[in-house]
Parts: sequence; C-alpha cells; structure tokens
Amino acid sequence: MPDQPAHMTPEEFRRHGHAAIDWIADYWASLDDLPVRAQVAPGDVRRLLPASAPETGESFDAVLADLDRVVVPGLTHWQHPRFFAYFPANSSPAAILGDLLSSGIGAQGMIWATSPAVTEVEQAVLDWFAEALGLPDTFRSDGPGGGVIQDTASTATFTALLSALHRASGGDVRRHGVGDADWRVYGSTQAHSSLVKAAMMAGLGEDAVRTIAVDPATQAMDVAALRAAIADDVAAGLRPVMVHLAAGSTSTGAMDDIAAAAEVARGHDAWVHVDAAWAGVAAVCPEHRGHLAGVESADSFVTNPHKWLLTTFDCSTFWVRDRAALTGALSILPEYLRNAATESGEVVDYRDWHPQLGRRFRAIKLWAVLRTYGIDGLQAHIRSGIALAEHVAELVAADDRFEMVTEPSLSLVVFRLAAGDEQTMAAMEAVNASGEAYLSHTTVEGRTAIRLAVGSWRTTRADVDRTWRALQEAAAAQA
Amino acid sequence: MPDQPAHMTPEEFRRHGHAAIDWIADYWASLDDLPVRAQVAPGDVRRLLPASAPETGESFDAVLADLDRVVVPGLTHWQHPRFFAYFPANSSPAAILGDLLSSGIGAQGMIWATSPAVTEVEQAVLDWFAEALGLPDTFRSDGPGGGVIQDTASTATFTALLSALHRASGGDVRRHGVGDADWRVYGSTQAHSSLVKAAMMAGLGEDAVRTIAVDPATQAMDVAALRAAIADDVAAGLRPVMVHLAAGSTSTGAMDDIAAAAEVARGHDAWVHVDAAWAGVAAVCPEHRGHLAGVESADSFVTNPHKWLLTTFDCSTFWVRDRAALTGALSILPEYLRNAATESGEVVDYRDWHPQLGRRFRAIKLWAVLRTYGIDGLQAHIRSGIALAEHVAELVAADDRFEMVTEPSLSLVVFRLAAGDEQTMAAMEAVNASGEAYLSHTTVEGRTAIRLAVGSWRTTRADVDRTWRALQEAAAAQA
Repeated sequence: MPDQPAHMTPEEFRRHGHAAIDWIADYWASLDDLPVRAQVAPGDVRRLLPASAPETGESFDAVLADLDRVVVPGLTHWQHPRFFAYFPANSSPAAILGDLLSSGIGAQGMIWATSPAVTEVEQAVLDWFAEALGLPDTFRSDGPGGGVIQDTASTATFTALLSALHRASGGDVRRHGVGDADWRVYGSTQAHSSLVKAAMMAGLGEDAVRTIAVDPATQAMDVAALRAAIADDVAAGLRPVMVHLAAGSTSTGAMDDIAAAAEVARGHDAWVHVDAAWAGVAAVCPEHRGHLAGVESADSFVTNPHKWLLTTFDCSTFWVRDRAALTGALSILPEYLRNAATESGEVVDYRDWHPQLGRRFRAIKLWAVLRTYGIDGLQAHIRSGIALAEHVAELVAADDRFEMVTEPSLSLVVFRLAAGDEQTMAAMEAVNASGEAYLSHTTVEGRTAIRLAVGSWRTTRADVDRTWRALQEAAAAQA
Repeated sequence: MPDQPAHMTPEEFRRHGHAAIDWIADYWASLDDLPVRAQVAPGDVRRLLPASAPETGESFDAVLADLDRVVVPGLTHWQHPRFFAYFPANSSPAAILGDLLSSGIGAQGMIWATSPAVTEVEQAVLDWFAEALGLPDTFRSDGPGGGVIQDTASTATFTALLSALHRASGGDVRRHGVGDADWRVYGSTQAHSSLVKAAMMAGLGEDAVRTIAVDPATQAMDVAALRAAIADDVAAGLRPVMVHLAAGSTSTGAMDDIAAAAEVARGHDAWVHVDAAWAGVAAVCPEHRGHLAGVESADSFVTNPHKWLLTTFDCSTFWVRDRAALTGALSILPEYLRNAATESGEVVDYRDWHPQLGRRFRAIKLWAVLRTYGIDGLQAHIRSGIALAEHVAELVAADDRFEMVTEPSLSLVVFRLAAGDEQTMAAMEAVNASGEAYLSHTTVEGRTAIRLAVGSWRTTRADVDRTWRALQEAAAAQA
C-alpha cells in the first residue's frame, strides 16, 4: 500500500479548530477599526499569492497567517457594523457553528435514503419557519406543498419558472422543451434581475419577460397595467406562464400588491411567484406582515434568512403550494438512486426540488438560529433594524441638503442629495472610499439615489450616527 | 430603540465554537462503532422534533445535545471509513476549517467589487489546481478562459449547455430563447443524469438528448455511433449543440475517448463538455491522467474536489476555454451592481459564471486543502485509494462466488455474485442493513452489480477486509 499523506490528527484538528474559532472572534472584534470597503486595486490580492500550489504540505497556521496578510486587506467586510450596502448578509455565531457542524457531519442529502435526518430536519425546520412567518398552511410539508432550502433566491425564481412551465404545459415542456409557444413572464420594472436571468436559462429568452410599469411614488407594480398587458398578450396568442411579484424590491423595498396581482394571474392560470428575498423574514413580527397580504394565493414564495435573519449564506427558504409541479419539472431517477423508501412514496427526495443533485445539510444552521434566538429574539432583531431605519429617515428629514426618495421600507431607507444626481453619487462614493461606511446606489424614476439598508446585528445607533456624519461631511464638500 | 436580542458574546462564541469543534472530533472518533447506514424508518427523525420553533431562545448546548439525540441516529455516515456507496464525499479537517473561516468572514463575492479577495483568491486557486491536474493553459484565467467554483457538477453541466447554446446561436438564444430550432445534445447511455436534467432546465426537453451506445466491455461511448448519430441528425435538419463526455461514469467509472469524440464534435461546431466529476481529481498524479487525454480539445471541464479530494461540499471546479460564451449566456447588470472596476474590464465578476447571483468564499477551503496537503500529499491520497481498489479486485478474483463486471476504474470496483442479480442485490442489501459497511448498486448491460468506491481518507485496508468478509458471509447466506 502507498503511504497515506499526513492528515490532521484529532488533536491537531482540535488545536487548529480552536484557533480558527478564535481567529473569527478576533476578526469580528477588529471590524470596527477596519475600512468597510476593500482598499485594493484589481490584481493586488493575486500578486500576494505564489504562482503554484506548494509541492509539500504546510501547516494550517500558515493559512491562518495568510488570511491576515493576503485576504483581510482585500475584503469588503460584509459583517462590519457600518455595512449598509445592497442588503446586508448577516451571519450570527449560532448559524456559523450550525454550518460548521454540518461540514463535520459531511452528509449528502440528495435523497431521503442517503441520510434521512438531512431531509427530515429540513422539512421540520421549514414548517417551523413557515409558521413563524405566518405563511398559509398550504405551504406546509404535511399537505400537497412543502418547503426546501435553496442556495439563493435566484435559484428559487428559476425553479418557480420551471414549475410554472411544467404545470402550464401539462408536462410537455419537460419532454419536448419550451418550443416556440411564445410563453410570457411578467414582473415589474423593479423585479430582481434574476427574473430575466431565469427566463434566459429556461430557454425562453430575455424577450419573454414583459416588464410592467410601477406606480412612480411607491414603485409597486401597476396592477391595472399587468391586467392590460396580459390581456394584450393573450389576444395576440401569447401564453402567460408566470407573474413575479416583489415583496420588497431590491432598489427601494417596493411592495407589489400580491392579492390584486394574483387575482389577475389566476384568471389566466399563470403561476404566481412571490420574491420576498429580503423583506419576507420581517414577517416573524406580526405587525410586519402587511406586505405579504395575499400570499395564500401565491404558488411559490421565497425569503432569504441569509440576508436579514442571522443565517450564514447560503440559506434561501422556498415554499410551493403544489410540490408535484416542482418535482414534475425536475425529477430524475437514475438506477443507482433507486431505493425502497423512494418507491414507497413515504419520503421526500429533495434532489427533485432544485437544479443540483448533491446537497449539504443546510437545515442545521437555520435550526440553530430558530432555536437559539427563539421567535422573541428574531422579532427583537427585526424590530431593532426597522427602528434604526426610522432613525435614518428622521436624520434625512432634519437636514435640508437631503431628501427622501421613497418612503422607508422596513429597514431600507432611500434618499438623495437635493443638489442633484452627480452630487448624490459623489457624496456616496466619498463615504465608501473613506472606508467609514459602505452604501450602495440605485436609480429611481431616472434619478440617482443612495440606499442605506440596516441588517447587521452589530449595527448600533452610534454606527448609524457616525455614517450620517460622514454623509453630511461629504454633502458639505459637494456644496 | 427596541431591545436587541441576546446575541452570543465573543466569549460565548469561543466557548460554543470550541465545543462544536470538539463535538466534530468526538463524532469522527465514534464513527467506526456506528452503523454506516441510518437505521431509521420514514418519520422517525421528525417525530423527535417539536411541532414549532421555541418562543424564547435556548442555549447552543441544547442544539449540540440534539445532534446526538435526534440527528446522529438518522444519519447515514458519509465520513465513515466503511462508506463505499455512490462516490464518497470526503471532507478533510483542513477543508472544514477553511469553510468555517469563510463563514466567519461572511463576504459575498457576487462581483469583484463586493469583496475583491473572494474573486482573486478563487482565480489563483483555480489556476493552481488546473496546473496540478495537468490541464491545458487554455483553461487558465490569464487567457480567454478561466475557472470558477460551482456548487455541483450538475450546475457545471447546465452552465456548459447554456454556453453552448449561446455560442451556437450567436447570442440569439439569450434574447429569443431556444425556440423550435431542434437542438440536439449527445451523451452516452452512461452519461450522468444531470445531462438530461440540464436539457430539461434549459428548455430543450428530455427528448433533445440523444443517447449514444457504449462498448459493452468498457462502457465507454462508441464514437462511431456518435459520428453516425450526429450525421443523421444534421441530415434531418437538427442542430448538434453539445457533446457530453464522461471521464469516469457514475455507474462503472467508464472513460469516454475525449480526443476521438471531440474531433467528431468539432466537425459540427458542437461544444465539448467533459464531466470528470469524480475521476478528474486523480490527475494530480501524472500516471493517472490517461483518461483526460484530449482534454485540450474540450470547451469545458468539471471535476469535484468535494468527492475524492478532501474538500468539504460544495466545491465543483469548472473551467472553460472561452469565458465569453459563458458570460454571454449568463450576464446581467442591474443598476445597483454597476461599478468602476466592472466597467474597466480589468476584473472578473463571477456572478456571470453561474446561475446564482450571491456566492460565498468557497475558495478558502480548496486553498486550505492544496496548501496543507501539498501536491505530494494529494498524490499520496489518490494513490492510496487506487491501491485499496486494486486490493478489492484481488479479493473478488480470489473468491469464485464473485466476479468482476468491468475492469477496476481508479478507486471504483464493480462486481457481482456469479449466482445472479437477485443474489447480488440481496447480498449487498444484507451488508447495508447490518450497518457494517455501505455499498451501492448499478445495472451494467442489464445485470445488477455492486459498486465499491473507495474515497475516504479514513478508509484502511482493515476496513476493506472487514467489508469483504461481510460480503462473503452475505454471499454464503445466499447460497
């Protein structure tokens, strides 16, 4: 037998493992003093790395040392308390440790039989979470529906579209493809870019997405325009297959009217997919469920605990009312995966719920979050973020160099410099370049705006105030 | 301001983190005494969980305790030294700690600008790994090609198909969809099921996959049959878009002749995708590169370090010769992701290399594996697995109740009981049910066979011998 290489001994694993945990704790403690946005130019990180992998192994300590030397200066720190860009992807200690345990277990949950606990804990946790969000029972696993953890909301939207095509075609698309049936997909001008990407990937093409106008004030879909567009398309012989609704758009947190749009969609048997990637988790608070009114009419719903709900990426929770459409679109059964449990029909095989075959035990991290925070703790976290956003809105109102662009949406505030687009962009860029805080921009009704999204559990009122002072200074410099 | 919930303090994180590391070390130490396959029936795990999430938070210690009480009995232990089913997904201590650090950093690498180190370390590590496997320079990131970490080989095959459609249509598919152009995709009868799934998802449908016969002895694609099939299809007005080649099929580890098949494909401008999900990593050993001969003709190539190369799931390394086809098929650029670095053209934005938008810092775990093992250590690991498989083949040859079904392929051995299909299946099922070892089955030329795939770094010769004795006893019980 050839020699085995030197694998870490159990003692070494404990020692390096404890060191890795401590590295993370130290990294988090250092964040407040680090520039939020990486201060590197293209190629700077790469230049610090050798051209090839080493011939002989190094100690794990060397990897840890290079995290400090090579990686940290090249990071934009998403876990920084003054990271307000995009939507923060905040990650709690409990989720990280849950995910670590999943790695240690190293099980593949592609089908129930390959590790039953992977599937059953995920089903249980998705039912818990559906209940915590006040979602309808139709999404629970004990009826014809059910939930699954997807990697991202983009994948959820894509699988929703595949399910919609399966249902609308009576299974013909699975067999013969989308053909030239002129399928049409609808979303507002504010729909996430993953809708167009889903249409491209599903073989429909970008042009199959019909973009519906929004109300200029709320940025929510104009449902009358949706009705008219679908009617036009049907009259022209096109086939409406899915309506994508944003419950919290990326740009401004706009909330489409789910009930009204779903009624239009149902009239044409189109699938209704609700993309609440960011805002859905706010529904753990009963007072923040208004934006999901009508969700009982939806065919599918997605929200991302990996954004605002303390669960380390990736964890996108996706539910369908009728899992038969989903598995009809995606099921495959090669010989080597045939087994008695699958044939009994008593189990769920998650392989048929998403594009991938292999899947890790992602439910542990969400289980750890739900259990260690409890519903109370999650509510407190969401309320804290919303209160900080309200504070930002007050700061904007109190300084006449700034103006709100849309009403605050949960923990997202969108505002601009009254002086104009160029000044708005320059002020944001100055703050970002300073490393003091990190914000992102958008365009609303043709004008540039700054987005400040609160999400991290590390963010305090002092962080918001410090960011605001930096913005005020940048605005003053523009004047 | 509302109260913040009780997040773990840094001290608590260290304490629970060290406990999680220790839990994993203890779990690994216990594996040898656990049944490999879970001994539970459908619903057994679920019944141990409460119906709802708790109202108030519990300690992380309670989660750890429930791993032992609820989860472990419901696991099939993929990290067990006598796990020989499917392809083992083995996970080394270094990879697990690398992934833990990625969770702690919690950066989103969707574009270069959102955390430059995520992209640049990944580019560097994929170049290192391409060199370590002896892949052609055309796959390196400093030319028109490049590598990216996908979640699974299924996703790699799907993105290869989207790239192929983009190139073949001159970009028309992106815009107008696949239409009724009668695209055809080719793979052998032994191609992974993800090829059909990819065709379904891309809107081509199952029927677009034309299945090519294999040589009965080697199970490799019959290249003459491929040539004839493509010629027939072209004559019938169909459009060959991609040829999928298995460099190590799932069933028996069959190796398609890449050079010969690629020559046929090139004659029709069809994309050549090489799926070496399991066997590709063996190429870290120069003497185990024969199955990749001709890969310089491939348009894309995938292999999974998360199977046989010690990297915790998910880590599927995917390279293309021409990244323009890939990004052409998948690029989107919403306003909020516009930035100077992207517009300069100096950076790679991995968002456009896969279906998802968000992406975690997966390169750290592969970096940790390459560095802590070194090329030498990885070669020793691969050689050790192959030597154990050769030992299994000798055991099969020495017992006339058993017979080989195909020649051993690297670390995979496929054999059966001479007595027949029913006896073969019963003997395997007896071993699996006993928990002593875990094997999987397949069908080769219409007959049932047992697959024994060596992969775990924990597997010793004693584990193989113990498994063999269990199989012999089961065979005796069938006689």
